[in-house]
Amino acid sequence: MCFKEIEESFKDHCGIFGIYRTDKKQDSAKITYFGLYALQHRGQESSGIAVNDSGNIIYHKDNGLVNEVFNEVVLNHLKGHSAIGHVRYSTTGKSDRENAQPLVVKYRKGHMALAHNGNLVNAHIIREKLEQEGVIFQTTIDSEVIANLISRNRINSENIEEAILKTMDEIKGAYSLLILTPNKLIAVRDPYGLRPLVMGKINNNICFASETCALDTVGAEYIRDVEPGEIVSVTKDGIKSIKYRQSFKHLCVFEFIYFARADSYLDGISVYEIRKKLGKQLCKESYVECDIVIGVPDSGTTAAIGFAEEAKIPFSEGFIKNRYIGRTFIKPEQSQREIAVRLKLNPLKSNVTGKRVVLIDDSIVRGTTSRKIIKMLRDAGAREVHLRISSPPVLFPCYYGIDTPDRNELIAANYTPQEIAKILGADSLEYLSLEGLNSVFDNKLQNFCTACFSGKYVTELPENFNKYIFEEGV
Amino acid sequence: MCFKEIEESFKDHCGIFGIYRTDKKQDSAKITYFGLYALQHRGQESSGIAVNDSGNIIYHKDNGLVNEVFNEVVLNHLKGHSAIGHVRYSTTGKSDRENAQPLVVKYRKGHMALAHNGNLVNAHIIREKLEQEGVIFQTTIDSEVIANLISRNRINSENIEEAILKTMDEIKGAYSLLILTPNKLIAVRDPYGLRPLVMGKINNNICFASETCALDTVGAEYIRDVEPGEIVSVTKDGIKSIKYRQSFKHLCVFEFIYFARADSYLDGISVYEIRKKLGKQLCKESYVECDIVIGVPDSGTTAAIGFAEEAKIPFSEGFIKNRYIGRTFIKPEQSQREIAVRLKLNPLKSNVTGKRVVLIDDSIVRGTTSRKIIKMLRDAGAREVHLRISSPPVLFPCYYGIDTPDRNELIAANYTPQEIAKILGADSLEYLSLEGLNSVFDNKLQNFCTACFSGKYVTELPENFNKYIFEEGV
Amino acid sequence: MCFKEIEESFKDHCGIFGIYRTDKKQDSAKITYFGLYALQHRGQESSGIAVNDSGNIIYHKDNGLVNEVFNEVVLNHLKGHSAIGHVRYSTTGKSDRENAQPLVVKYRKGHMALAHNGNLVNAHIIREKLEQEGVIFQTTIDSEVIANLISRNRINSENIEEAILKTMDEIKGAYSLLILTPNKLIAVRDPYGLRPLVMGKINNNICFASETCALDTVGAEYIRDVEPGEIVSVTKDGIKSIKYRQSFKHLCVFEFIYFARADSYLDGISVYEIRKKLGKQLCKESYVECDIVIGVPDSGTTAAIGFAEEAKIPFSEGFIKNRYIGRTFIKPEQSQREIAVRLKLNPLKSNVTGKRVVLIDDSIVRGTTSRKIIKMLRDAGAREVHLRISSPPVLFPCYYGIDTPDRNELIAANYTPQEIAKILGADSLEYLSLEGLNSVFDNKLQNFCTACFSGKYVTELPENFNKYIFEEGV
Amino acid sequence: MCFKEIEESFKDHCGIFGIYRTDKKQDSAKITYFGLYALQHRGQESSGIAVNDSGNIIYHKDNGLVNEVFNEVVLNHLKGHSAIGHVRYSTTGKSDRENAQPLVVKYRKGHMALAHNGNLVNAHIIREKLEQEGVIFQTTIDSEVIANLISRNRINSENIEEAILKTMDEIKGAYSLLILTPNKLIAVRDPYGLRPLVMGKINNNICFASETCALDTVGAEYIRDVEPGEIVSVTKDGIKSIKYRQSFKHLCVFEFIYFARADSYLDGISVYEIRKKLGKQLCKESYVECDIVIGVPDSGTTAAIGFAEEAKIPFSEGFIKNRYIGRTFIKPEQSQREIAVRLKLNPLKSNVTGKRVVLIDDSIVRGTTSRKIIKMLRDAGAREVHLRISSPPVLFPCYYGIDTPDRNELIAANYTPQEIAKILGADSLEYLSLEGLNSVFDNKLQNFCTACFSGKYVTELPENFNKYIFEEGV
Repeated sequence: MCFKEIEESFKDHCGIFGIYRTDKKQDSAKITYFGLYALQHRGQESSGIAVNDSGNIIYHKDNGLVNEVFNEVVLNHLKGHSAIGHVRYSTTGKSDRENAQPLVVKYRKGHMALAHNGNLVNAHIIREKLEQEGVIFQTTIDSEVIANLISRNRINSENIEEAILKTMDEIKGAYSLLILTPNKLIAVRDPYGLRPLVMGKINNNICFASETCALDTVGAEYIRDVEPGEIVSVTKDGIKSIKYRQSFKHLCVFEFIYFARADSYLDGISVYEIRKKLGKQLCKESYVECDIVIGVPDSGTTAAIGFAEEAKIPFSEGFIKNRYIGRTFIKPEQSQREIAVRLKLNPLKSNVTGKRVVLIDDSIVRGTTSRKIIKMLRDAGAREVHLRISSPPVLFPCYYGIDTPDRNELIAANYTPQEIAKILGADSLEYLSLEGLNSVFDNKLQNFCTACFSGKYVTELPENFNKYIFEEGV
Repeated sequence: MCFKEIEESFKDHCGIFGIYRTDKKQDSAKITYFGLYALQHRGQESSGIAVNDSGNIIYHKDNGLVNEVFNEVVLNHLKGHSAIGHVRYSTTGKSDRENAQPLVVKYRKGHMALAHNGNLVNAHIIREKLEQEGVIFQTTIDSEVIANLISRNRINSENIEEAILKTMDEIKGAYSLLILTPNKLIAVRDPYGLRPLVMGKINNNICFASETCALDTVGAEYIRDVEPGEIVSVTKDGIKSIKYRQSFKHLCVFEFIYFARADSYLDGISVYEIRKKLGKQLCKESYVECDIVIGVPDSGTTAAIGFAEEAKIPFSEGFIKNRYIGRTFIKPEQSQREIAVRLKLNPLKSNVTGKRVVLIDDSIVRGTTSRKIIKMLRDAGAREVHLRISSPPVLFPCYYGIDTPDRNELIAANYTPQEIAKILGADSLEYLSLEGLNSVFDNKLQNFCTACFSGKYVTELPENFNKYIFEEGV
Repeated sequence: MCFKEIEESFKDHCGIFGIYRTDKKQDSAKITYFGLYALQHRGQESSGIAVNDSGNIIYHKDNGLVNEVFNEVVLNHLKGHSAIGHVRYSTTGKSDRENAQPLVVKYRKGHMALAHNGNLVNAHIIREKLEQEGVIFQTTIDSEVIANLISRNRINSENIEEAILKTMDEIKGAYSLLILTPNKLIAVRDPYGLRPLVMGKINNNICFASETCALDTVGAEYIRDVEPGEIVSVTKDGIKSIKYRQSFKHLCVFEFIYFARADSYLDGISVYEIRKKLGKQLCKESYVECDIVIGVPDSGTTAAIGFAEEAKIPFSEGFIKNRYIGRTFIKPEQSQREIAVRLKLNPLKSNVTGKRVVLIDDSIVRGTTSRKIIKMLRDAGAREVHLRISSPPVLFPCYYGIDTPDRNELIAANYTPQEIAKILGADSLEYLSLEGLNSVFDNKLQNFCTACFSGKYVTELPENFNKYIFEEGV
Repeated sequence: MCFKEIEESFKDHCGIFGIYRTDKKQDSAKITYFGLYALQHRGQESSGIAVNDSGNIIYHKDNGLVNEVFNEVVLNHLKGHSAIGHVRYSTTGKSDRENAQPLVVKYRKGHMALAHNGNLVNAHIIREKLEQEGVIFQTTIDSEVIANLISRNRINSENIEEAILKTMDEIKGAYSLLILTPNKLIAVRDPYGLRPLVMGKINNNICFASETCALDTVGAEYIRDVEPGEIVSVTKDGIKSIKYRQSFKHLCVFEFIYFARADSYLDGISVYEIRKKLGKQLCKESYVECDIVIGVPDSGTTAAIGFAEEAKIPFSEGFIKNRYIGRTFIKPEQSQREIAVRLKLNPLKSNVTGKRVVLIDDSIVRGTTSRKIIKMLRDAGAREVHLRISSPPVLFPCYYGIDTPDRNELIAANYTPQEIAKILGADSLEYLSLEGLNSVFDNKLQNFCTACFSGKYVTELPENFNKYIFEEGV
């Protein structure tokens, strides 16, 4: 079943993978399938793969996890020497099949497939302008805007790379892009490097992925990160790198705090190490006497291990997580409301009863889950529950591709930590300081986007974005 | 599973249905569902319905029959005061989910859904021109070309109807169109009236359908046919009719011979009556002494009844057709090749053994099926098999929406009837004459498109279409 | 989805097919698949195939049509030298997956699969007796009763054939059975021959089918009907025929009137010929002056052709039947009630308006459909509608495998023809006489079961069956 | 798709849940659904729920996870005041839909549904005996044997409880059973208490589950464990407990080591606590100097935390586990063989490079996975890898419901720890001692079944089981 309401909602978080094969092997779709599998944590809503061959591009995409959308028969049909793939995270429940990526289009120079991770902040302005000129849109994804611009810029360009450069002058925001044409695989990263994108090599074939964990999985060797503002164009004649006229290092810091998989390296930095250090730093800043340190599974576990190590208190498990919860399950009735939480997490009574617990999580957004978790700990007999957050308070929404609610729903934007502690039922609550975060990154935090903590957006925001923020009273 | 190769293949045959409700009832999708059910013979490849409400258009479409694509849950979600629907016939095996209709787009004035029956002869030229200007295409259907033109023409037009008129200046060929916007339902028929389109009324709500059988099914009263070159625009304020600057009557004669359902009336003429008269006329022209008259099920049945009546020979059944053959079934192996035919048709041995049989069919395209059927009759003991065709020889391909093969595959374009009889294993073969066809239509055949018989295409054909024909040596 | 309520409902109508291969070919499942396809009219509820090999029996069965339940992958797994298959007609809406056949069981001598067509009249008595001895039942099908008896009778029997003979002493009613063991294929027909069963040969491999149309389809040569009370056992050493101690010829006459496919021969008699003769005889008995003769599609068509031939009135088509109605479709709402009928059948207005119509059907059960059809004809402008039924009034329920309602729902058991004509809205109504039926069968009607017309059941009925009949006031 | 080969394979591991409602609420199926969700770790192959109402039992079951087999529509149909459910673990790839439980049968006293966790050691002997008496079998599950015995024993019993007691005299082995009749819910645990079964209460309604985690999930209060040899019969009149004539405490110790969920309590003992103590004891016995302690995710994690705590070495994570691996996924090709492992687990390079690693797992069966994991650690740069197992060597197969391979495939039964270390590529390997295990259980190990370590089976084994063992050279 597929319902689509074409609305102006552009927010996605996604994972992308691509491979360019120069040898005769026809297994690019299969390698991409495994690459996407390793990136599934970046998006569980839809999956898609496009392959090129003989001047044509064929594809398959649908709503669902990688292993739901693809099977042996489908993959065997996707024959081609190169491939790109995409997994998508749906935001506000609009699971529109049409919005699945890669987007495949026919334009004046033939076919082109695009897979996009990130969020443009001026997509709606460009759409409106294009619509005024008569352009029609069939999806609500930024990729359609980008494809239109590339197609139009191609008219007076020598080649597609030049058209992409011109397009980069027009689009603002976060984008890591993979573009597949019948004979090229092109990787593009926005001038701020907001979303990650790495390059690897498998048997002399170049591949790209949102994170190194996908390279590990497919057995590829890590070469380097695609640089901010870089266009890497791979053809049978080799790799060509083109740099946009300006660039900055502003990788999203939240990739380290929460979003990326712990075994990935972004810009050469181990996500796991950062998370553990965040826990240690958090302990230095906000140690509290207690009996056990536990993490909210699974996002708080690594920081909790770091905190426990620093605190010299044993790390422990506080909950058992049900590993079999599917994407959808039947809702308990009103009278069974508590089942919904316990279905996913059950506290380890024997471990927490009578204990003073330090509970570590990576962040608080609305606070609803935290409240339930703290209540479960108390019901299980915890004597004290001290909540420690391994990142600063999230005060501002993200416009670069992480789905965050409006400011009025961000609990930290509306209450003091003491008030939040009370709301959540915690005995105390401490966040990591921005300085602490900075120290964890060897005092180079200025090289990362921290807009959600600081409100310092690395790009200009279109007028209505600013207005929006003002209206919220910041 | 959905594979899509974006190629330049535009040929479809389709059925469309639409309804505009002015009352509060929200069952437009359901009525459209039943309307499409009655039009399923016009296309079994994909089905789709779009509804409008509150300034938005939501839709559902997929490959499959109407009752495969839709279920109660889906229909209940498609709430809206008005709806259009589409069933599509796939031509060369490209069952691309993306090509399912209605096409739903967002353009400068909001959303718009299009359902198209017919074939433009200059779509590829317009596409190329648009692509030169930077337009991207995501499907291979004409509707996407039309939507682009309407969107662009809308810029300097007062309203959508004016934009449609301008678009009609640009597109050439056959089109019966239903266009749904958040507050209008617009029906358009090309200036030659090549494809049928009728208007009806159900409880004071206007509806449109490819054929009257859909009106009968949903319980609507027939009002009139949409006229060639007419735009009928329905809003809450009523019906507005706009006429294109010129128009002709050239409804496809093959709709009567084969394509439409026998219980439909097109331009007020009963399809059933025509078919029966074709049989009678055929008998007048090519009577042959025989014991029984049978039709190829189901397409030759009605003409056979007419032939038998005229010949005063009892009409009889020659085959039993298996009513349970689905869209797909497992292919018999090489050694079981004959099963494929017998699975669908089994001759009534008791009825044909020792008999001189007149076998009636509506047309011969490649001749492959006819040969198998005649062989089955002979194997079942028929003494003589005289093949009679209730239409003239198909000598030219159709460019207006009926899927016909190239001339070199049209058996009648390459052999004389005597040669064909020999090829097919028939004792004799006679076609209906063009004059005979004319007489059946009360000598008004000039009001119909007979290009497939005569080569007189009612529209200009783009240069390459002509070349194509020339290359084939006609 | 599969819900099963184990209730005491034993009525089924079914089709069976089996093949014993002595050569090495492993395509028995595939041939059975095609055989079942040709028997699909005998049951659309569930489909199943079991194959034997290496001492084991593997199978696949589920609710659905043959081409829904089986695909290439499934068939390829069903490797084995011999196979039996079954299609099942569900009666009162109980679409229990567990009741799909063949039934495959493990008993003291190994594995055994059973496919059953017919209905035992004493199954409930045997079940009760077995249950008293501790036997458990997992389905409500007769096959489970039969399998239990064969298994128990096998204890003191030399071989399975002897066990079957003993079982035949116990079970009463209609049964055509195919039994597959790891090295035998056994066909059994009840001593009255109530249900059909024919034997054929394909490349020297013996096969069995409910009707000859399945032999035709798979390319098998007809050998003979399995005789009433005969056990035909096929092994690699050849065919062995065993006769039950007594037997009678009482093939169900309704197979000829309605149930079998018209191209089949039962006991060597052409079903088509009988149906046409029924129409002719009906005309002799109840001619009425009229303009056209039409049949209720598809069941009345052949008799209508016969009636028309005899009456020397042109046979004509009165309705167009929608060929795309699936097993399930969305119900129209109350206000759209008439859609349900028109979705399936639409009258050919041009053909019936102002006409005196003779409408032929094979039988009337409850009369509900006939009333709707006659109303449609009148709405379409028919001047007179004379209903003629090509069989005598159905006055008694069938206990031998055709699903008939209780007597109080059989319209002919409760009203005179004149009253029925009035109820149905017909100008007149005539049934074929029993004598007429006898004459069509060359005055050998005593060789057929006519219990539904005459109440003369060929077997004893268990006490409660009689009681049941008495209670209904016959 | 469902293939079934009826073979003599009886081994299953399963989870069961049941609830008896005395109030009017019809949500027993839904509560059972959530209960099964919490027991999904005990079986992922098939799921089923049966409910009773109005003297009937309706059910739904199929292959698949709970949330694949059930949806809102299905659950809404399963109306009834009481319910039992089952999840099943398939052993040797025989995913036979027919073997899904609960088994629902009709017997002399009406309907009965059975859900069984455990394995009978004499099922094949009883089956053979029953088959000799003519009984037929349709599945290969023990439940069918049990249902037959209960049905037969019911003949001379006052009530079903008496029949169950008699059946307990006949069946040997492990069984925790839930039996549902139209008015009773009966829980049975074998006289050795080999498999767990707990009783709870939710709003005064009695429920049963394999583990307490299911009680927690549905919000039920734990009452007590069903005792070894106890029959608990719940009716609207209350709870009745019947004790078998003899009983022993021999709960499977492996439930604590690996199988049960860590948040469960079995016989009142916290599974989590045991696992942590096993890690501590393991450290006491086989400490080795190292830099980090890691567990094989997820089975070794808790013991690793215990080991680390005892060793005063920081617990750390060594791998990231992909949480999105479905039940089935496409196999990498030969050349991509390593992908299969890395798809599931990726080592945390930054954490293990240059480190001396202690790797904790709960057990070694064949050793294949351990070898791959150790290789991954070495490839990631681990300097030393010391494998520590938190249970004694598995030397003997389990006959009580845990699927273990033959002795010749049990690596510990064929090699010394030193040899195994070499085979697996570990620098050292130590198992927990049986004495250590005993101490963790407060020296009450005699109250548990430790047959897989000691070969001391708590029940007699049928002759051929012994023979089997002898043949393996023990």
